Amino acid sequence: MSNEDKTVTEEKPVAAFHGNERILALSDGVFAIVITLLVLEIKVPEIASDLVAKELPHAVMELVPKMIAHAISFVVLGIYWISHHNTFMHIKRHDRVLLWLNILFLMCVASMPFPTGLLSEYPNQQISVIAYALPLVLAGVSMDVMWWYASTHNLLDEHQNDKNFIAFVHRRNLIAPIAYLFAIGVSFISLTLAKFVFIVVALYYILPNPLDRKRHQLSRRLDR
Amino acid sequence: MSNEDKTVTEEKPVAAFHGNERILALSDGVFAIVITLLVLEIKVPEIASDLVAKELPHAVMELVPKMIAHAISFVVLGIYWISHHNTFMHIKRHDRVLLWLNILFLMCVASMPFPTGLLSEYPNQQISVIAYALPLVLAGVSMDVMWWYASTHNLLDEHQNDKNFIAFVHRRNLIAPIAYLFAIGVSFISLTLAKFVFIVVALYYILPNPLDRKRHQLSRRLDR
Amino acid sequence: MSNEDKTVTEEKPVAAFHGNERILALSDGVFAIVITLLVLEIKVPEIASDLVAKELPHAVMELVPKMIAHAISFVVLGIYWISHHNTFMHIKRHDRVLLWLNILFLMCVASMPFPTGLLSEYPNQQISVIAYALPLVLAGVSMDVMWWYASTHNLLDEHQNDKNFIAFVHRRNLIAPIAYLFAIGVSFISLTLAKFVFIVVALYYILPNPLDRKRHQLSRRLDR
Amino acid sequence: MSNEDKTVTEEKPVAAFHGNERILALSDGVFAIVITLLVLEIKVPEIASDLVAKELPHAVMELVPKMIAHAISFVVLGIYWISHHNTFMHIKRHDRVLLWLNILFLMCVASMPFPTGLLSEYPNQQISVIAYALPLVLAGVSMDVMWWYASTHNLLDEHQNDKNFIAFVHRRNLIAPIAYLFAIGVSFISLTLAKFVFIVVALYYILPNPLDRKRHQLSRRLDR
Repeated sequence: MSNEDKTVTEEKPVAAFHGNERILALSDGVFAIVITLLVLEIKVPEIASDLVAKELPHAVMELVPKMIAHAISFVVLGIYWISHHNTFMHIKRHDRVLLWLNILFLMCVASMPFPTGLLSEYPNQQISVIAYALPLVLAGVSMDVMWWYASTHNLLDEHQNDKNFIAFVHRRNLIAPIAYLFAIGVSFISLTLAKFVFIVVALYYILPNPLDRKRHQLSRRLDR
Repeated sequence: MSNEDKTVTEEKPVAAFHGNERILALSDGVFAIVITLLVLEIKVPEIASDLVAKELPHAVMELVPKMIAHAISFVVLGIYWISHHNTFMHIKRHDRVLLWLNILFLMCVASMPFPTGLLSEYPNQQISVIAYALPLVLAGVSMDVMWWYASTHNLLDEHQNDKNFIAFVHRRNLIAPIAYLFAIGVSFISLTLAKFVFIVVALYYILPNPLDRKRHQLSRRLDR
Repeated sequence: MSNEDKTVTEEKPVAAFHGNERILALSDGVFAIVITLLVLEIKVPEIASDLVAKELPHAVMELVPKMIAHAISFVVLGIYWISHHNTFMHIKRHDRVLLWLNILFLMCVASMPFPTGLLSEYPNQQISVIAYALPLVLAGVSMDVMWWYASTHNLLDEHQNDKNFIAFVHRRNLIAPIAYLFAIGVSFISLTLAKFVFIVVALYYILPNPLDRKRHQLSRRLDR
Repeated sequence: MSNEDKTVTEEKPVAAFHGNERILALSDGVFAIVITLLVLEIKVPEIASDLVAKELPHAVMELVPKMIAHAISFVVLGIYWISHHNTFMHIKRHDRVLLWLNILFLMCVASMPFPTGLLSEYPNQQISVIAYALPLVLAGVSMDVMWWYASTHNLLDEHQNDKNFIAFVHRRNLIAPIAYLFAIGVSFISLTLAKFVFIVVALYYILPNPLDRKRHQLSRRLDR
């Protein structure tokens, strides 16, 4: 079927562009909704009208720890969005397997409002910590599997044959899921320590990292 | 009115590009929202503070069947999104009829949180199974009508005259709705069997299918 | 300031493209969310477990009128989306005024879940009918003001000087808001008749219209 | 590592285009969801069926102040969206810092439904006014920091070296956050005056501003 082969060749640039556009649109849509809904979980307190002046400031202040919990989830989702963004900047084609891996990744992302609510409601329970870390581990792993799949199935851009670069992205993709897996292990010893890991991961990604110069030099190739 | 004709000719490429972009943006938006809201239905359990340590793990575990039900709907919507994506990769132009067929398709997709909730709440009722399968039948049929309409009204890309290809997409589009129609029929005999059909359809689309080589050879032309 | 003038000239094509893309992304996002949330208003009925088998089919059937009400709103929003899509296919540039007119339009669109819920809950009250029709009148008028503004401020594509075409779009844009304004008037005489107008408008836009051939000939230039 | 340098140079145009597209998609998604959810907060009143005819008009009228509060938030978010749109029209590249600044900006935007609900529920409490103004101050400042960062890190388009233009955008970006900061200060003296500032800011941005001709001449370069 030489006709078929010809079709594939002719179509490549259009299809690759067209296809990835929709993957990214779906992914950005899911991220936009999840980060907006996270903040929506914080409800206006209901107070009897004669007590409002006295009790409202206190009631709003009581919501602050909850707000911080949601802000941390916001940052965590930011980490994963940036990571998805950087990874897909070098994936130029896709096939059915990559579509399904991405849907698995989005399922983990979309599930975050539940564990965020759980951790915010019951911060001192191990199950809250595990339920929070588990989808993040799975999301990080599924993203790295995407990168592995794309790099071994010729779906990348001109970095296809750049082994150092591919290995660098693997390392970067796996830092967050390994840290969250570590947090699950730590939760059997100390919940406070496990939650501390969550905060350290968030800070690690936000703050500039002067110790790790080589990483930054390389990441200039990614983070544009 | 030669002026009018000229306008049409000149505008074609821009209009086709511009127009389909928004159809796809609207469709991706609806999918992103529906799959995110699906997971949102799972609520944090409310437990009196002195019983939390004892009852929370059990309460979260009790949510697992519900989570699986929502994960299956997630996969089902993934099937329909990929199908929509693959179909529209070959539709290059649209008219008012196609817009309305797509809106009908999106209405079915957008309605899925209700039957998912129904099936998750009342899994052993025939009406739950029928309410779940019916919009999926309608969505699948409306997608295939779109393909039929596009292929008979000269809205396709260079596959416009490739009868084998057009027939192949018809077959692929119709597998899911026929399976769900079958599940409705089966529900009059056995609800367990009907729900088993739902799971089989999900697995059929996710798992690689070694028996069906010819389909895979052809689908290489689609699933990029 | 000749430097300023030069900048404007050089930037025009990029800016116009870039700018409208985001207007359309915002608009498609609002439409996607509103049509999805519409259907979400239908809640799973809560029934005591010993009565489920007996009462669930009846409880679901009772939701059917509500579902039809929401389906009609879905169609109405489809009309407005298609109209927005067709109008913006010929608007190639924008300025601050157009941005604000579009935000006013989106505010009316975004407000539709409330009157839909009101009409669905209290179908026999005049205030429900008026609350439903009013934002639709305002949305239709603001869309036509956008068309008027764009056509008088040189923001159109090559149809900028085609007076027949501009007048045709005005007529088409104004059919829906005039019909809804008419429905408000009719609601003072008969609520049934007013709601009948809603259904007629929906059908008018969905069904092919064989009597009105000239409109169809012209609209071939729009509805691609 | 000359190979690395070469890669950067070759990739630049693609990466810049590709990257900003997703930043804008995420941002537009968040804005679309927030403005739609704002209006969703208005609930259909629940009235016993024998009292509907008598009480419904009154109950709907009682919602009007709430609707106006939400309409003002709609306008405020419109201001910030237009400002983000205009700012990013001149930012052609991004790096990790800009991504995080934008996520901070979106976090402030996404948090607006809570203070809108608070202000609408408890309009006469200082904490409502402060909770409403604070995220708007932070959003405005983080947007201007983005502009400062982009203009000092060579991320702009051909305006990179146009100091007047850069200063003009700074002034325009800072008007809203300074006004909201002023409103917080005023709230210690008079809540009515503070809320009056909110309305003045909204009107300032919507209404054409005949006194400020120079600003309009310059903004013609921005508001396309």
